[in-house]
Amino acid sequence: MKLGKVIGSVTATRKEGNLGGLKILVVSYLDENLADTKKTAACIDAMGAGEGDIVLLCSSSSARITQMTRNVASDNTIVGIVDAISSNNVYTYNKSKQQ
Amino acid sequence: MKLGKVIGSVTATRKEGNLGGLKILVVSYLDENLADTKKTAACIDAMGAGEGDIVLLCSSSSARITQMTRNVASDNTIVGIVDAISSNNVYTYNKSKQQ
Amino acid sequence: MKLGKVIGSVTATRKEGNLGGLKILVVSYLDENLADTKKTAACIDAMGAGEGDIVLLCSSSSARITQMTRNVASDNTIVGIVDAISSNNVYTYNKSKQQ
Amino acid sequence: MKLGKVIGSVTATRKEGNLGGLKILVVSYLDENLADTKKTAACIDAMGAGEGDIVLLCSSSSARITQMTRNVASDNTIVGIVDAISSNNVYTYNKSKQQ
Amino acid sequence: MKLGKVIGSVTATRKEGNLGGLKILVVSYLDENLADTKKTAACIDAMGAGEGDIVLLCSSSSARITQMTRNVASDNTIVGIVDAISSNNVYTYNKSKQQ
Repeated sequence: MKLGKVIGSVTATRKEGNLGGLKILVVSYLDENLADTKKTAACIDAMGAGEGDIVLLCSSSSARITQMTRNVASDNTIVGIVDAISSNNVYTYNKSKQQ
Repeated sequence: MKLGKVIGSVTATRKEGNLGGLKILVVSYLDENLADTKKTAACIDAMGAGEGDIVLLCSSSSARITQMTRNVASDNTIVGIVDAISSNNVYTYNKSKQQ
Repeated sequence: MKLGKVIGSVTATRKEGNLGGLKILVVSYLDENLADTKKTAACIDAMGAGEGDIVLLCSSSSARITQMTRNVASDNTIVGIVDAISSNNVYTYNKSKQQ
Repeated sequence: MKLGKVIGSVTATRKEGNLGGLKILVVSYLDENLADTKKTAACIDAMGAGEGDIVLLCSSSSARITQMTRNVASDNTIVGIVDAISSNNVYTYNKSKQQ
Repeated sequence: MKLGKVIGSVTATRKEGNLGGLKILVVSYLDENLADTKKTAACIDAMGAGEGDIVLLCSSSSARITQMTRNVASDNTIVGIVDAISSNNVYTYNKSKQQ
């Protein structure tokens, strides 16, 4: 999985039928210091994420192993909203401390 | 998924049988500012896209999870035609405003 | 899919049984201007391609969705031989005009 | 598979149901000299790895071919904890000699 | 598939059960001139390869389409040992001529 930050959303009226009703978010990949890698992807949101959220992304066929994306044309799905990232018991990210 | 812009098409008379009758388009990947990343792919068009359209691309085995590409040798399928991309409720792309 | 140019072939006597009898070609990936990207792959040839041919490559599990590669250990299969690539109704490549 | 070093962990209360109870670790990819490649991923831990461990990572659909990750939305799973890496019968890494 | 050169091996006592008894080799990817690309991977050896061998690597779900790796957590399997690579009927590599 990859860590990313939600930075936008995509609207597409004409799309594959199985994508109907699913939110498509633009996510920017982050490195382990949560610095922006300048690479982005469009992801299906299985979690109700919002802009600014740090999220966990699951790609390839595993992007379809969620309740909302079985049999959906998704190759990258948001499968978690990150609360905290720690290293050596020190938080490098703590959502509740953000503002 | 990735965002891309349709820039051309491919003709191949000799091709795998299951690709018969499907349009193969050349797509240039875009970053979140819709700037060209200079990377391209050939994609199966499941949407009736045209040159210049901003499209949503689905890769890997999920490229086969569309009505037109089940059991088709596609590793990258156009699964949507983008109307708009927004960030913080501001449009960074709006098809109806293009000319 | 990717566009590539066949530049060589691989011989391997000791190989996985299901690869028996299949031709393994070395392909150099091309960008949309058919310029060499200096990246190469070894691909299973499902089309009878020859050196110099511009080919269409299908990767990941979709590399196995051809008549010749079902249940074959291929992660990259030549699924088409390109006749022409066009952009804005202008040919950027036309096999019949090559020499 | 890739070699990586565990450098942290991720906490996510809101996540896909099938990820419940699984540890998500941040891993930094290593090259063959065990030098840090500066690329990281979040991985499901199927092995009980700890920070500092050199681990073996399995990606794509094969990330689900473990006892702990069948039917789990993982695209990258820790499938081994490395004891030693050798080249020409010389150890380039030996866990028991580390301190 | 990719071409690579076997440069080492990995020992892991704690590993996913289905990896038991399988050799894990470190492989360095080669370009078409057999120059080292400085990228490496750990691969399951389905062929009995040795250090120095030029091998054919199969990745993604196709890494499991071999007799030794069905239902094994491998995302990259050695599926052939290369005897020769030729371009325009000239050998760029010939194992029997190496020393």
